[in-house]
Amino acid sequence: MIIIMSPNATKTQVEDVEKKLVGLGFQTHPIFGEIKTVIGAIGDKRLLNTHDISFMPGVENIVPIMKPYKLAGKELKKDPTIVKVGNVEIGGKEIVIMAGPCAIENEETYIGTAIKVKESGAKILRGGAFKPRTSPYAFQGLEEDGLKIMAKAKEATGLALVTEVVDTRDVDLVATYADIIQIGARNMQNFKLLHEVGLTKKPILLKRGLAATIEEWLMAAEYIMAAGNQNIILCERGIRTYETATRNTIDMGAIPVVKEFSHLPIIVDPSHATGSWKYVNALSKGAIATGADGLIIEVHSDPNNALCDGPQSLKPSKFDQLVSELKPVAQSVGRTL
Amino acid sequence: MIIIMSPNATKTQVEDVEKKLVGLGFQTHPIFGEIKTVIGAIGDKRLLNTHDISFMPGVENIVPIMKPYKLAGKELKKDPTIVKVGNVEIGGKEIVIMAGPCAIENEETYIGTAIKVKESGAKILRGGAFKPRTSPYAFQGLEEDGLKIMAKAKEATGLALVTEVVDTRDVDLVATYADIIQIGARNMQNFKLLHEVGLTKKPILLKRGLAATIEEWLMAAEYIMAAGNQNIILCERGIRTYETATRNTIDMGAIPVVKEFSHLPIIVDPSHATGSWKYVNALSKGAIATGADGLIIEVHSDPNNALCDGPQSLKPSKFDQLVSELKPVAQSVGRTL
Amino acid sequence: MIIIMSPNATKTQVEDVEKKLVGLGFQTHPIFGEIKTVIGAIGDKRLLNTHDISFMPGVENIVPIMKPYKLAGKELKKDPTIVKVGNVEIGGKEIVIMAGPCAIENEETYIGTAIKVKESGAKILRGGAFKPRTSPYAFQGLEEDGLKIMAKAKEATGLALVTEVVDTRDVDLVATYADIIQIGARNMQNFKLLHEVGLTKKPILLKRGLAATIEEWLMAAEYIMAAGNQNIILCERGIRTYETATRNTIDMGAIPVVKEFSHLPIIVDPSHATGSWKYVNALSKGAIATGADGLIIEVHSDPNNALCDGPQSLKPSKFDQLVSELKPVAQSVGRTL
Amino acid sequence: MIIIMSPNATKTQVEDVEKKLVGLGFQTHPIFGEIKTVIGAIGDKRLLNTHDISFMPGVENIVPIMKPYKLAGKELKKDPTIVKVGNVEIGGKEIVIMAGPCAIENEETYIGTAIKVKESGAKILRGGAFKPRTSPYAFQGLEEDGLKIMAKAKEATGLALVTEVVDTRDVDLVATYADIIQIGARNMQNFKLLHEVGLTKKPILLKRGLAATIEEWLMAAEYIMAAGNQNIILCERGIRTYETATRNTIDMGAIPVVKEFSHLPIIVDPSHATGSWKYVNALSKGAIATGADGLIIEVHSDPNNALCDGPQSLKPSKFDQLVSELKPVAQSVGRTL
Repeated sequence: MIIIMSPNATKTQVEDVEKKLVGLGFQTHPIFGEIKTVIGAIGDKRLLNTHDISFMPGVENIVPIMKPYKLAGKELKKDPTIVKVGNVEIGGKEIVIMAGPCAIENEETYIGTAIKVKESGAKILRGGAFKPRTSPYAFQGLEEDGLKIMAKAKEATGLALVTEVVDTRDVDLVATYADIIQIGARNMQNFKLLHEVGLTKKPILLKRGLAATIEEWLMAAEYIMAAGNQNIILCERGIRTYETATRNTIDMGAIPVVKEFSHLPIIVDPSHATGSWKYVNALSKGAIATGADGLIIEVHSDPNNALCDGPQSLKPSKFDQLVSELKPVAQSVGRTL
Repeated sequence: MIIIMSPNATKTQVEDVEKKLVGLGFQTHPIFGEIKTVIGAIGDKRLLNTHDISFMPGVENIVPIMKPYKLAGKELKKDPTIVKVGNVEIGGKEIVIMAGPCAIENEETYIGTAIKVKESGAKILRGGAFKPRTSPYAFQGLEEDGLKIMAKAKEATGLALVTEVVDTRDVDLVATYADIIQIGARNMQNFKLLHEVGLTKKPILLKRGLAATIEEWLMAAEYIMAAGNQNIILCERGIRTYETATRNTIDMGAIPVVKEFSHLPIIVDPSHATGSWKYVNALSKGAIATGADGLIIEVHSDPNNALCDGPQSLKPSKFDQLVSELKPVAQSVGRTL
Repeated sequence: MIIIMSPNATKTQVEDVEKKLVGLGFQTHPIFGEIKTVIGAIGDKRLLNTHDISFMPGVENIVPIMKPYKLAGKELKKDPTIVKVGNVEIGGKEIVIMAGPCAIENEETYIGTAIKVKESGAKILRGGAFKPRTSPYAFQGLEEDGLKIMAKAKEATGLALVTEVVDTRDVDLVATYADIIQIGARNMQNFKLLHEVGLTKKPILLKRGLAATIEEWLMAAEYIMAAGNQNIILCERGIRTYETATRNTIDMGAIPVVKEFSHLPIIVDPSHATGSWKYVNALSKGAIATGADGLIIEVHSDPNNALCDGPQSLKPSKFDQLVSELKPVAQSVGRTL
Repeated sequence: MIIIMSPNATKTQVEDVEKKLVGLGFQTHPIFGEIKTVIGAIGDKRLLNTHDISFMPGVENIVPIMKPYKLAGKELKKDPTIVKVGNVEIGGKEIVIMAGPCAIENEETYIGTAIKVKESGAKILRGGAFKPRTSPYAFQGLEEDGLKIMAKAKEATGLALVTEVVDTRDVDLVATYADIIQIGARNMQNFKLLHEVGLTKKPILLKRGLAATIEEWLMAAEYIMAAGNQNIILCERGIRTYETATRNTIDMGAIPVVKEFSHLPIIVDPSHATGSWKYVNALSKGAIATGADGLIIEVHSDPNNALCDGPQSLKPSKFDQLVSELKPVAQSVGRTL
């Protein structure tokens, strides 16, 4: 950690900061420039949570040197994490496709879609039983009834299930049905919920927050990991920017950045990232070529009548075509599908 | 609602959309331009949650005409809402100042600060017992012990209490102690939590999400109101932008926009908006002059040793000076303080 | 165009707006809802530049139906534009790679780099003679001397040249040397410069502005086209967002969006988009798989001593490896390289 | 400057960076942490423009300690700059109001508006003769004819003139007529234009770029100052964010930030910042209370028929009311108006 003193900091102020740091167990290394003094401090920054020095007189700024995450970073674990869900491996050589409708609406449609996405090559079945909706008047999901339908679809297809939890009180219930528990974008900093799913040991699909930095995202992973659960799959789903041509702006650069700083696998959700099925094909290919470990794609057998997010859902036939077009792309970057 | 058809939509596609809309209870008014057809649809857009037409062949875009919020908007209630907390009125002629430390750390410091902010003119005492922190290793608050300290401070000063709840499971507990329940920025779209506090009837301080639009913010208020609680105070606390000179970018324009579209009172949190005590004085004045109904300001008797957000906290003496400087500003725009 | 009247607009106000529109040559189609009236107006929106109606009493909002660009859009020209530079075609089946250093520093280094990028497969040589730099104290380019060195490199390699112009007074000079004239991100809305390069008939590489919407970008193309020059290559180079892990956020979604609304070719600049050579490989592959028509990549034989943007430049050996890795990616999406 | 080495940097790599820095005239101070080494470097960072070290093996990041601007900062000049335009002082105790229409349309309307804004208390008359417009089909200004009309309005009212220049070729012409030359938001990084107006010695109104950081804005000022012109008035006019309720998001926090780091005066343009006349009153008051030195406000005697930006223009009567309401606000923060 580097403490930058302001140009008019007094000698006493510099000494006071040093004393404080030494008292906290840091070694200090002041460097006196012509205009400003900076103090290098060696030690565990986490101690600083209880004794902030940035308010001390004469302090202009503090520059952290170490990343704030430990478990999610590469410091303690250098090799890539492979999350196992049954016999599916996420983060290995194979690209894993998760697919299904946004919300579970009824048994027939859901199982029908499930069978089709499996035939096309999906390995994980998605579906929402608890839906976080912007409007209180919008369809909020079938809740436990939805989970039961998911269970039947699993029985029918053998596909593992990924579904979202939005309330700490529902974590145990969702964990009973889900093979992967999803934390949605709006809950990425719902720290109590992160802690609670961290206690389950189930694989967690952690979506990036609407306007979260990559560092905050990895800190959200850290919450889950600090609670004891290391099985995390990150999911880039677009960030909020000024551009309105797409619903969100897909941050493809997050893929190599995450690969550089973390050992966790990362997949991409092109459906939510763009908000339009028309762009899903192009961006799915782009995500795989950029280095994503998988995709999660909305597929609905009748998007026209979907209760949620119809405009961004692919019809099963378009999804089937997409998967076949993705295969050569995966191969071109040394992956399988 | 206006449906814009794409330039190459066929006549049949236009008719199909009309039929669908009529089936949903809408009246349709197609307008045939040279290149594009648009369809005006009159009726209750809320029905559309279950039957989205935006995916239908030939549809390019849908433009809503009505705001998606009802209870939070001015349609059903034109006069400003005044939220009463004991004998304090928020949204009336008087500017209300809420103040106190970010987190409750210990009884002595907290009550000391409480007494001082009351002397300076604060009407509501803030304090965090449950703290949402970016890092799992940071101080997370004293939880119920913190609430108990708040109760003692209330006893000592007579100030009403505002404190945050972050978990649906703690709503009842927090409601027992708090006079105003705060929903923090990170939970603005934690819809289950919104619903739960909506059941309490306690006044709610609803902070704007880190990157929430004003419309999403009012929709979050709508969740609380739809659950039966009309006592909402909106709180602008800065939004996320590319600018890094301040922690967030205070959106002062949100004040007149909220006043135009909603009857709810709005206050400003200059401490979180800027992240630096140095800018709190200037922006507090600016917020009042722009039309805010109040302020919530972090004050700590020893920011140097604060367990949380020290850099943005004012010392009691600076806070005292601020309040005295705010009085003429309030008067200059026809308010009292 | 749709005019949305406010809920409390009077009948007379609605009639006044209609009269005004009719006077401007529009046909009007009012639709009376329960709460709001909307007026559909058919006619040429461009007339409205001189007579804005959005200020009229009772008008709440105006929703354009047609895109504001004509020449850059697909209305008048449906087939993709292929820009020819010598025997290189941009926008055809072949992926075109442009490469070279950020700035031209001296003849030896520049020609050395030029020879290497040609050997690796680049078809266009980039280089900056006029550099827009954030600091007035930074190296501003060799100006005409730089252009002369570029001419020698062209002689030595046969590669066509792309270089930036930043001042209307230099357009003729740059046009003498350049095969493609670049408009940089900071000048995307320097409308006089757009007009001036529009008069040259040279192919134009139009970079997206730092925080430009796709619509504004296509309007910038419209400026050039309205001046008579139809040879435009769009270049996505990252947009400004709150994320700081990369220098800019590459907007990969812009590729399919541009392909949907415009006939112009689009290439990607992964070097400026990320600001780090480490991410160039991954995002180059991603861009091609997403559907870009080419790439422009910074290559420097000694990035360590580059006068400009060293950190984002690839060494020639890394560039050579990149091009060989890009070939199968191009093939996997039906393109050649 | 602090160089942060990556965790796996070798001892030789650290030594190489030190050698390089020493060769460039820096003194180095390495600090060896458990995981990372950082190197403090004392010297003139400007030398680094020609020899970037961030690409050297083992270097993770470089943290500048000094601000990149010298002349615009407080290092060399601590007292506030007061820009004098005739007998008007901008940056002194008095709040200065600039007002007038967006574009000059005809002599009669313009002079009529000029007389009215003078009567209400404006001290500087604004008007656009060269208009940067998003569409090539929009009204681009009357050019020199517009400047001539401005000259007549000056004669009629005695008001000093502020008007924009958009092309290096027009700087001399505009300087002949203007008392203050405006650099618009879209040209804030048109460095050639900045240099050119820097040669004129006329006061410059430098608008903040659409998505410029405060640091980039001060660097734009630095360009003008480095060319020899110290008379700069900064103008905050809203930045681009995801929020669409207002045209731009006014960054009120920029006022105290600029006051902290620069000696230059700063005014606010609430008309462009919000895009709606309805919000101009509230934000004008907010800007003055926050500490702005003045305002620039669009006023049009017939906004209904304005050729440009009608929706954000105040009628003269509303402007008159605004100025009278601003007076007590100015007084409440110790200023005069």
